[in-house]
Amino acid sequence: MAGNSFGNLFKVTTFGESHGEALGGVIDGCPAGVEIDLEAVQRDLDRRKPGQSAIVTQRKEPDEVRFLSGIFEGKTTGTSIGFMIENTNQKSHDYSHIKDSYRPSHADYVYDQKYGFRDYRGGGRSSARETACRVVAGAIAKQVLKDIQFQAYVSSVGAIELNKSYEDLHLEVAETNIVRCPDAQKASEMETYIKQIRKEGDTVGGIVSCVIKNVPVGLGEPVFDRLHAELGKAMLSINAVKGFEYGSGFKGSKMKGSDHNDKFNTDGTTQTNFSGGIQGGISNGMDIYFNVAFKPVATLIQEYETIDKEGNIVKMQGKGRHDPCVVPRAVPIVEAMAALVLADYYLLNRASKL
Amino acid sequence: MAGNSFGNLFKVTTFGESHGEALGGVIDGCPAGVEIDLEAVQRDLDRRKPGQSAIVTQRKEPDEVRFLSGIFEGKTTGTSIGFMIENTNQKSHDYSHIKDSYRPSHADYVYDQKYGFRDYRGGGRSSARETACRVVAGAIAKQVLKDIQFQAYVSSVGAIELNKSYEDLHLEVAETNIVRCPDAQKASEMETYIKQIRKEGDTVGGIVSCVIKNVPVGLGEPVFDRLHAELGKAMLSINAVKGFEYGSGFKGSKMKGSDHNDKFNTDGTTQTNFSGGIQGGISNGMDIYFNVAFKPVATLIQEYETIDKEGNIVKMQGKGRHDPCVVPRAVPIVEAMAALVLADYYLLNRASKL
Amino acid sequence: MAGNSFGNLFKVTTFGESHGEALGGVIDGCPAGVEIDLEAVQRDLDRRKPGQSAIVTQRKEPDEVRFLSGIFEGKTTGTSIGFMIENTNQKSHDYSHIKDSYRPSHADYVYDQKYGFRDYRGGGRSSARETACRVVAGAIAKQVLKDIQFQAYVSSVGAIELNKSYEDLHLEVAETNIVRCPDAQKASEMETYIKQIRKEGDTVGGIVSCVIKNVPVGLGEPVFDRLHAELGKAMLSINAVKGFEYGSGFKGSKMKGSDHNDKFNTDGTTQTNFSGGIQGGISNGMDIYFNVAFKPVATLIQEYETIDKEGNIVKMQGKGRHDPCVVPRAVPIVEAMAALVLADYYLLNRASKL
Amino acid sequence: MAGNSFGNLFKVTTFGESHGEALGGVIDGCPAGVEIDLEAVQRDLDRRKPGQSAIVTQRKEPDEVRFLSGIFEGKTTGTSIGFMIENTNQKSHDYSHIKDSYRPSHADYVYDQKYGFRDYRGGGRSSARETACRVVAGAIAKQVLKDIQFQAYVSSVGAIELNKSYEDLHLEVAETNIVRCPDAQKASEMETYIKQIRKEGDTVGGIVSCVIKNVPVGLGEPVFDRLHAELGKAMLSINAVKGFEYGSGFKGSKMKGSDHNDKFNTDGTTQTNFSGGIQGGISNGMDIYFNVAFKPVATLIQEYETIDKEGNIVKMQGKGRHDPCVVPRAVPIVEAMAALVLADYYLLNRASKL
Repeated sequence: MAGNSFGNLFKVTTFGESHGEALGGVIDGCPAGVEIDLEAVQRDLDRRKPGQSAIVTQRKEPDEVRFLSGIFEGKTTGTSIGFMIENTNQKSHDYSHIKDSYRPSHADYVYDQKYGFRDYRGGGRSSARETACRVVAGAIAKQVLKDIQFQAYVSSVGAIELNKSYEDLHLEVAETNIVRCPDAQKASEMETYIKQIRKEGDTVGGIVSCVIKNVPVGLGEPVFDRLHAELGKAMLSINAVKGFEYGSGFKGSKMKGSDHNDKFNTDGTTQTNFSGGIQGGISNGMDIYFNVAFKPVATLIQEYETIDKEGNIVKMQGKGRHDPCVVPRAVPIVEAMAALVLADYYLLNRASKL
Repeated sequence: MAGNSFGNLFKVTTFGESHGEALGGVIDGCPAGVEIDLEAVQRDLDRRKPGQSAIVTQRKEPDEVRFLSGIFEGKTTGTSIGFMIENTNQKSHDYSHIKDSYRPSHADYVYDQKYGFRDYRGGGRSSARETACRVVAGAIAKQVLKDIQFQAYVSSVGAIELNKSYEDLHLEVAETNIVRCPDAQKASEMETYIKQIRKEGDTVGGIVSCVIKNVPVGLGEPVFDRLHAELGKAMLSINAVKGFEYGSGFKGSKMKGSDHNDKFNTDGTTQTNFSGGIQGGISNGMDIYFNVAFKPVATLIQEYETIDKEGNIVKMQGKGRHDPCVVPRAVPIVEAMAALVLADYYLLNRASKL
Repeated sequence: MAGNSFGNLFKVTTFGESHGEALGGVIDGCPAGVEIDLEAVQRDLDRRKPGQSAIVTQRKEPDEVRFLSGIFEGKTTGTSIGFMIENTNQKSHDYSHIKDSYRPSHADYVYDQKYGFRDYRGGGRSSARETACRVVAGAIAKQVLKDIQFQAYVSSVGAIELNKSYEDLHLEVAETNIVRCPDAQKASEMETYIKQIRKEGDTVGGIVSCVIKNVPVGLGEPVFDRLHAELGKAMLSINAVKGFEYGSGFKGSKMKGSDHNDKFNTDGTTQTNFSGGIQGGISNGMDIYFNVAFKPVATLIQEYETIDKEGNIVKMQGKGRHDPCVVPRAVPIVEAMAALVLADYYLLNRASKL
Repeated sequence: MAGNSFGNLFKVTTFGESHGEALGGVIDGCPAGVEIDLEAVQRDLDRRKPGQSAIVTQRKEPDEVRFLSGIFEGKTTGTSIGFMIENTNQKSHDYSHIKDSYRPSHADYVYDQKYGFRDYRGGGRSSARETACRVVAGAIAKQVLKDIQFQAYVSSVGAIELNKSYEDLHLEVAETNIVRCPDAQKASEMETYIKQIRKEGDTVGGIVSCVIKNVPVGLGEPVFDRLHAELGKAMLSINAVKGFEYGSGFKGSKMKGSDHNDKFNTDGTTQTNFSGGIQGGISNGMDIYFNVAFKPVATLIQEYETIDKEGNIVKMQGKGRHDPCVVPRAVPIVEAMAALVLADYYLLNRASKL
């Protein structure tokens, strides 16, 4: 309810503001005896961190995670795992321009309305900086589910899109370029476009796609907690996300049943996979795949007019080091949230039969 | 966890199979003192029920709800509200063809895999018949939130689409035709198309759109329980849904920030509403609007090949009285789920302040 | 939150008022494939029902349960189990005396304060009649846990007490007398005393003890969801309960550690069992045992003074057919709640391991 | 489920082992705008900390709490509050004697059985050291509920007991002596007794009582989440607790209804308070009071025999700096858990009426 927890049996609860002392969280329900590769956790954090390439924000944050409990002699103990990431880049900025004004399409206005006031430093809790904690928890979840592969990638930036099924792509290419797009040619176009957008002081949206392979049959809890419903919630909870579709998605709504039905092979697999690996809310063993739409970042490096607390029109000047396009850094966040969902449902499924 | 509950403070838990004795549920957390209009509940059920028009399944189910507790002298008591809908149309069908075989793109296979066996009569729990209970609970939620208006409508059937913003439509037209499309001309085309599809023994998908007006500012619980994340989960939990987008949605991912940002008016409203009434996961008082993509119904009235439990290829013949397109009947379900989400968040928001 | 659910993975949600149309509930999370003995469920209901003997209320309610879903071909399907018990004894009583007045030590006053009004017929939702639904759900839980034995019994009525450890009693004697006390001599004394109390129009409290045998090691979820903490909550949630102790209980607080520590045998069992089968909140395989204190029923068959809604002093006359002492009928309720807790933790423990 | 969270709307999730890097937690759902007195938090921690007097463990831990988020400009922001307490006393002990052996009446054996292995350093997660985090969260809860007073005190140590109602005591005396007993004479006897017990290398149990004054009417969520049921769970979740009773408690089970019923005054208060401030699971505005029984600490400073992992009998020698009796240090923990329950139910109650 208090909305800073995600999951049930495998649950993460997070805290931390953009410019507070530290971010962190508690992973509860991680099974005992899982050997933890701390470097793999840090690698996922590094894929998300600012300053990693020429097309993301140039803020410098090392984003080093420190585990405080729940791991002993290299293995999870079955008790809660506390972790934290110190904020090392808390410059004594002058925030007076943000303090009393509301930036368009940010959460400034609604936070003030809901809570009566807000931590205005860098967006406070509404900053996407909190997603670093999701990446930590997701990296642990991946290690719990070591036979399942999660791979997200950028499939569109503005109007530049892949227009290919994941099966026709070389997904391993994604991590070889700074856009995280599995098509080298498109990646190059996207990179050029993002740089141009940044020069304009503008931003642009994009789509992250994700494929999950080797999922066991049976994950998902009808009727409300269908596997794709929770995946959808997970993705929509990420900052800047506007849409989610899985399998045939919105295109599937244009199709006829005779084209859309996935015929069975004799081993229970299917010849096509419009279902996206999920039928009736339960995984069927085929690949799960889905798309996540991100809006353009709201912070522009331009002068613009907005209102202050009293409703006066004021001029503001976007400044600082912001992402012109979030999707390259969103890739590990999408994977992390997917891993959190799958870990939870993997454990839940153990309770469905005696 | 056990997946048959939805909501936290305003919570519904449902039960019932397609061809069992009855469906029903418990609404827990409904505030005391709400005057309940039972006829309004039945009206929403009638909008969902089979047999209501020439373009939906011709099964006959009266779908009359009986309230068993929690309402006294016309008002909610604050204690749990039990309700049930008897299944009156449980024909002693011959289900032997379904019993041992797996229909493509149905839940037959995964239920058998997850639970070890299944109630094969009419799809059992995986049947969309369970959504009748959602409509009951949603109709109560609407009465709790009597100042908020929920209106869903059909915006596409197959390739026939409205291509108009809800602001340019006469939404009140939707309930004047059997497709529930607010554009009379398009409705007529859709109706013709659905009838043709049915003649072919085929089915087709579509999109339901929904607008929520008069939402108070402040609903939504960052960071994981953003208002739109829970709306997305709610919609994705409905049978046959493949995608969800709100505000600018997938189109927003193609836009630049300078076009997408919603500039403030001096009263805190915004000049555009690409945000879809939600910023940072919290309602901002503008209209909330979203789209829900439904796949084509998997049951075709055609002969086809599939597999049985042992993996043998068998011939099946779809029969019975099925919907050629679910979206006309899905309209009240989308509204119901939206009302459940809003009621829950309305109470959460009340409870979160001193 | 909304307080009519109990449990997490094995969860029951109940509804129903004393004199409404029906009581019932939904059992969610029951694993698939459990063969259900419906007669065993009814037997537990019969142990709780009114009119069963000369020392309980003489109301006549058959308390027949009707299952509506979730059981198919004699086995649980893994989907939610709906059930209901019709209220057949809803006499058109005259409740005007209760309607506007507050009976001492009943919930009348607080319900009016909390909810603004109340269903005053027979106590409405605050009546112990709701415990019938607990017994139904508990009887299903017992069948899930078929290797674990639950036996509750009456260990004191007023000042008449057993003063014996359960190990020195013949527990099977309990169900051979109407008091449900495993010592025939004490049972006879208790019966005589209860009859005398009833003649006086008075009531008396008592204690129900419970033993759970054959519990697997490992049930319990530190640190907050210790097994005995949830057992305590379960028992304290039963109407009229004032206290709970397990193992050495309150007497243990008088002891020295050198006497209280349970020395290990070489097989991991312990030589004594002051721990009550639970260490650190986790079952250790020894018998779990605990005591539950019930206050005297508040409804007296006497004239007394109380206040009405406006705060005027009014005379009331207790009437009707009430229990002079609840403990004989509480025995199956205590077992049911214990079974619900154990079923939930059994599933949690399964789900918490890789 | 994962058992390291407590509460729903006001929720705390904790982590940390006795000898790990740090303990800490996340408080989620704390309403915005509460001015936080950090010194008051530290004062409660100091009441719990080791080394505070001659009758508690002489370990030295400063137990200084560091808040990491959720408090801005001295007030809560409505977002999650992260906090941590560094473990400064992690001596490089030799734990080889504990590592492979099971101390009687500790959690060593069950942790190994449940999780496959354990952090054996100082009890790991099963150590009462985790209660420091409860005290932090409870101290915040007290500040949310600033009109409600929580006072716990020691009412018995071994056989030395107060035998007085809280109304006949000067509760303010409790914090003037190191036992935290509100009767100076009894406190002196208890202190002498505890010192003697410690000299013997033994330990002794005791009882903590608690009074909550100025509770608003209406807190509590029937039927399962009765206010006293959650209070009971909260108390039973504290290390070493064996029993809980409220109001008339176990003594109430010996009484007649005619003596036990609390007659109303014309203002809705009652002339007696056997109900303990709660009727039907809902607070009635009278004082809430209850008793919590603690067993004697299991760690004795004596030589004893036990078993190792292979079931061999081994000799162990209790050593270190342990509490001879936990109740003096348990007083702030009982208050903290009570405050957590009340804060949660206070917020929940806001959702029960429109």
